[in-house]
Amino acid sequence: MANPYDKARELAGELQGSEEFTTLKGLHDQVNSDEVAKRMLDNFRNVQLGLQEKQMQGQEITEEEIQEAQKQFELVQQHEVISKLMEEEQRMSQLVGDINKIITEPLEALYGTGEEQ
Amino acid sequence: MANPYDKARELAGELQGSEEFTTLKGLHDQVNSDEVAKRMLDNFRNVQLGLQEKQMQGQEITEEEIQEAQKQFELVQQHEVISKLMEEEQRMSQLVGDINKIITEPLEALYGTGEEQ
Ligand SMILES: [Ca+2]
Ligand SMILES: [Ca+2]
Repeated sequence: MANPYDKARELAGELQGSEEFTTLKGLHDQVNSDEVAKRMLDNFRNVQLGLQEKQMQGQEITEEEIQEAQKQFELVQQHEVISKLMEEEQRMSQLVGDINKIITEPLEALYGTGEEQ
Repeated sequence: MANPYDKARELAGELQGSEEFTTLKGLHDQVNSDEVAKRMLDNFRNVQLGLQEKQMQGQEITEEEIQEAQKQFELVQQHEVISKLMEEEQRMSQLVGDINKIITEPLEALYGTGEEQ
Protein backbone atom coordinates (compact mmCIF):
# COMPACT_ATOMS: atom_id res chain seq x y z
CA MET A 1 0.00 0.00 0.00
CA ALA A 2 1.10 3.52 -0.70
CA ASN A 3 2.03 5.81 2.14
CA PRO A 4 2.57 9.58 2.29
CA TYR A 5 6.35 9.24 1.89
CA ASP A 6 6.09 7.06 -1.23
CA LYS A 7 3.54 9.47 -2.72
CA ALA A 8 5.77 12.42 -1.90
CA ARG A 9 8.64 10.73 -3.75
CA GLU A 10 6.34 10.10 -6.72
CA LEU A 11 5.32 13.75 -6.63
CA ALA A 12 8.95 14.86 -6.51
CA GLY A 13 9.50 12.70 -9.61
CA GLU A 14 6.52 14.33 -11.36
CA LEU A 15 7.86 17.75 -10.47
CA GLN A 16 11.32 16.87 -11.75
CA GLY A 17 9.81 15.53 -14.99
CA SER A 18 7.46 18.49 -15.47
CA GLU A 19 7.76 20.96 -18.32
CA GLU A 20 8.15 23.69 -15.69
CA PHE A 21 11.19 22.03 -14.12
CA THR A 22 12.80 21.16 -17.46
CA THR A 23 12.44 24.73 -18.70
CA LEU A 24 13.74 26.13 -15.41
CA LYS A 25 16.74 23.79 -15.39
CA GLY A 26 17.57 24.63 -19.02
CA LEU A 27 17.58 28.37 -18.30
CA HIS A 28 19.47 27.85 -15.06
CA ASP A 29 22.19 25.90 -16.86
CA GLN A 30 22.28 28.50 -19.62
CA VAL A 31 22.88 31.35 -17.17
CA ASN A 32 25.43 29.37 -15.18
CA SER A 33 27.50 28.59 -18.25
CA ASP A 34 27.60 32.29 -19.23
CA GLU A 35 30.05 34.06 -16.94
CA VAL A 36 28.71 37.56 -17.59
CA ALA A 37 25.09 36.53 -17.09
CA LYS A 38 25.97 34.59 -13.94
CA ARG A 39 27.81 37.56 -12.42
CA MET A 40 24.92 39.87 -13.33
CA LEU A 41 22.40 37.58 -11.64
CA ASP A 42 24.64 36.99 -8.60
CA ASN A 43 24.99 40.75 -8.14
CA PHE A 44 21.24 41.23 -8.37
CA ARG A 45 20.56 38.43 -5.87
CA ASN A 46 23.16 39.74 -3.44
CA VAL A 47 21.61 43.22 -3.54
CA GLN A 48 18.15 41.70 -2.97
CA LEU A 49 19.37 39.49 -0.10
CA GLY A 50 21.15 42.43 1.51
CA LEU A 51 17.98 44.53 1.44
CA GLN A 52 15.86 41.64 2.77
CA GLU A 53 18.29 41.14 5.65
CA LYS A 54 18.21 44.81 6.52
CA GLN A 55 14.42 44.83 6.40
CA MET A 56 14.20 41.75 8.64
CA GLN A 57 16.53 43.39 11.16
CA GLY A 58 14.36 46.50 11.12
CA GLN A 59 17.17 48.63 9.65
CA GLU A 60 16.36 51.59 7.43
CA ILE A 61 16.88 51.23 3.70
CA THR A 62 18.40 54.31 2.10
CA GLU A 63 17.31 56.04 -1.09
CA GLU A 64 20.64 55.05 -2.68
CA GLU A 65 20.05 51.40 -1.89
CA ILE A 66 16.58 51.47 -3.44
CA GLN A 67 18.01 53.12 -6.56
CA GLU A 68 20.85 50.57 -6.74
CA ALA A 69 18.35 47.69 -6.46
CA GLN A 70 16.16 49.25 -9.15
CA LYS A 71 19.17 49.67 -11.45
CA GLN A 72 20.18 46.03 -10.96
CA PHE A 73 16.61 44.91 -11.57
CA GLU A 74 16.36 46.86 -14.84
CA LEU A 75 19.71 45.41 -15.89
CA VAL A 76 18.68 41.77 -15.35
CA GLN A 77 15.27 42.45 -16.90
CA GLN A 78 16.99 43.49 -20.10
CA HIS A 79 18.95 40.24 -20.23
CA GLU A 80 16.72 37.86 -22.16
CA VAL A 81 17.87 34.60 -20.56
CA ILE A 82 17.95 35.97 -17.01
CA SER A 83 14.54 37.58 -17.34
CA LYS A 84 13.13 34.28 -18.67
CA LEU A 85 14.81 32.43 -15.80
CA MET A 86 13.21 34.79 -13.29
CA GLU A 87 9.84 34.32 -15.00
CA GLU A 88 10.21 30.55 -14.79
CA GLU A 89 11.29 30.74 -11.15
CA GLN A 90 8.08 32.58 -10.40
CA ARG A 91 6.09 29.95 -12.30
CA MET A 92 7.82 27.17 -10.32
CA SER A 93 7.24 29.01 -7.07
CA GLN A 94 3.53 29.27 -7.97
CA LEU A 95 3.42 25.54 -8.76
CA VAL A 96 5.11 24.59 -5.46
CA GLY A 97 2.75 26.96 -3.63
CA ASP A 98 -0.30 25.36 -5.30
CA ILE A 99 1.01 21.89 -4.42
CA ASN A 100 1.54 22.87 -0.78
CA LYS A 101 -1.99 24.22 -0.65
CA ILE A 102 -3.41 20.96 -2.03
CA ILE A 103 -1.36 18.84 0.39
CA THR A 104 -2.29 20.79 3.50
CA GLU A 105 -6.00 21.01 2.58
CA PRO A 106 -7.00 18.12 4.91
CA LEU A 107 -5.26 19.89 7.80
CA GLU A 108 -6.79 23.25 6.89
CA ALA A 109 -10.20 21.59 6.86
CA LEU A 110 -9.57 20.00 10.26
CA TYR A 111 -8.54 23.26 11.89
CA GLY A 112 -11.07 25.36 9.98
CA THR A 113 -13.89 23.15 11.28
CA GLY A 114 -12.44 23.28 14.77
CA GLU A 115 -12.67 27.07 14.85
CA GLU A 116 -16.33 27.10 13.88
CA GLN A 117 -17.44 24.65 16.55
CA MET B 1 -0.39 10.70 -17.69
CA ALA B 2 0.01 11.95 -14.15
CA ASN B 3 0.97 15.53 -13.50
CA PRO B 4 2.19 17.29 -10.34
CA TYR B 5 -1.32 18.48 -9.44
CA ASP B 6 -2.86 15.00 -9.72
CA LYS B 7 -0.02 13.54 -7.66
CA ALA B 8 -0.42 16.29 -5.07
CA ARG B 9 -4.11 15.40 -4.74
CA GLU B 10 -3.19 11.72 -4.37
CA LEU B 11 -0.68 12.68 -1.69
CA ALA B 12 -3.31 14.77 0.11
CA GLY B 13 -5.54 11.68 0.05
CA GLU B 14 -2.73 9.53 1.50
CA LEU B 15 -2.15 12.10 4.20
CA GLN B 16 -5.86 12.23 5.02
CA GLY B 17 -5.99 8.43 5.17
CA SER B 18 -2.82 8.08 7.22
CA GLU B 19 -2.76 6.77 10.78
CA GLU B 20 -1.20 10.10 11.80
CA PHE B 21 -4.12 12.10 10.43
CA THR B 22 -6.79 9.75 11.81
CA THR B 23 -5.24 9.88 15.30
CA LEU B 24 -4.89 13.66 15.12
CA LYS B 25 -8.48 14.13 13.96
CA GLY B 26 -9.78 11.83 16.70
CA LEU B 27 -7.99 13.77 19.44
CA HIS B 28 -8.98 17.08 17.85
CA ASP B 29 -12.66 16.06 17.87
CA GLN B 30 -12.34 14.77 21.43
CA VAL B 31 -10.96 18.09 22.69
CA ASN B 32 -13.51 20.11 20.72
CA SER B 33 -16.44 18.17 22.16
CA ASP B 34 -15.17 18.77 25.72
CA GLU B 35 -15.93 22.36 26.67
CA VAL B 36 -13.43 22.52 29.54
CA ALA B 37 -10.61 21.01 27.48
CA LYS B 38 -11.41 23.28 24.54
CA ARG B 39 -11.31 26.39 26.70
CA MET B 40 -8.04 25.27 28.30
CA LEU B 41 -6.43 24.73 24.88
CA ASP B 42 -7.82 27.99 23.46
CA ASN B 43 -6.38 29.89 26.42
CA PHE B 44 -3.00 28.27 25.93
CA ARG B 45 -2.97 29.01 22.19
CA ASN B 46 -4.03 32.62 22.73
CA VAL B 47 -1.22 33.16 25.23
CA GLN B 48 1.28 31.58 22.78
CA LEU B 49 -0.01 33.65 19.85
CA GLY B 50 0.15 36.82 21.91
CA LEU B 51 3.79 36.17 22.84
CA GLN B 52 4.71 35.30 19.25
CA GLU B 53 3.13 38.52 18.01
CA LYS B 54 5.01 40.58 20.59
CA GLN B 55 8.26 38.86 19.68
CA MET B 56 7.72 39.47 15.96
CA GLN B 57 7.06 43.15 16.62
CA GLY B 58 10.25 43.35 18.67
CA GLN B 59 8.35 44.12 21.88
CA GLU B 60 9.76 43.05 25.22
CA ILE B 61 8.18 40.06 26.95
CA THR B 62 7.77 40.52 30.68
CA GLU B 63 8.65 38.07 33.45
CA GLU B 64 4.93 37.81 34.31
CA GLU B 65 4.05 36.87 30.73
CA ILE B 66 6.70 34.14 30.68
CA GLN B 67 5.37 32.79 33.97
CA GLU B 68 1.78 32.90 32.70
CA ALA B 69 2.77 31.00 29.54
CA GLN B 70 4.63 28.42 31.62
CA LYS B 71 1.63 27.98 33.91
CA GLN B 72 -0.68 27.48 30.93
CA PHE B 73 1.75 25.01 29.39
CA GLU B 74 1.96 22.92 32.58
CA LEU B 75 -1.83 22.98 32.78
CA VAL B 76 -2.36 21.63 29.25
CA GLN B 77 0.47 19.12 29.72
CA GLN B 78 -1.41 17.62 32.64
CA HIS B 79 -4.54 17.15 30.54
CA GLU B 80 -4.14 13.71 28.97
CA VAL B 81 -6.13 14.33 25.77
CA ILE B 82 -4.69 17.80 25.13
CA SER B 83 -1.12 16.63 25.73
CA LYS B 84 -1.70 13.72 23.33
CA LEU B 85 -3.19 16.12 20.78
CA MET B 86 -0.13 18.35 21.04
CA GLU B 87 2.13 15.32 20.63
CA GLU B 88 0.23 14.27 17.51
CA GLU B 89 0.34 17.81 16.13
CA GLN B 90 4.10 17.70 16.42
CA ARG B 91 4.17 14.31 14.69
CA MET B 92 2.01 15.68 11.86
CA SER B 93 4.16 18.78 11.58
CA GLN B 94 7.23 16.51 11.27
CA LEU B 95 5.49 14.46 8.58
CA VAL B 96 4.51 17.55 6.57
CA GLY B 97 8.05 18.89 6.98
CA ASP B 98 9.54 15.61 5.70
CA ILE B 99 7.15 15.64 2.75
CA ASN B 100 8.06 19.21 1.85
CA LYS B 101 11.73 18.27 1.98
CA ILE B 102 11.17 15.33 -0.39
CA ILE B 103 9.11 17.44 -2.80
CA THR B 104 11.58 20.31 -3.02
CA GLU B 105 14.63 18.01 -3.34
CA PRO B 106 14.83 18.43 -7.16
CA LEU B 107 14.87 22.22 -6.70
CA GLU B 108 17.41 22.05 -3.87
CA ALA B 109 19.61 19.90 -6.12
CA LEU B 110 19.27 22.40 -8.97
CA TYR B 111 20.22 25.38 -6.83
CA GLY B 112 22.78 23.45 -4.77
CA THR B 113 24.61 22.42 -7.94
CA GLY B 114 24.39 25.96 -9.25
CA GLU B 115 26.29 27.29 -6.22
CA GLU B 116 29.15 24.85 -6.72
CA GLN B 117 29.68 25.69 -10.36
CA1 LIG C 1 7.85 31.87 -19.56
CA1 LIG D 1 1.55 9.72 20.33
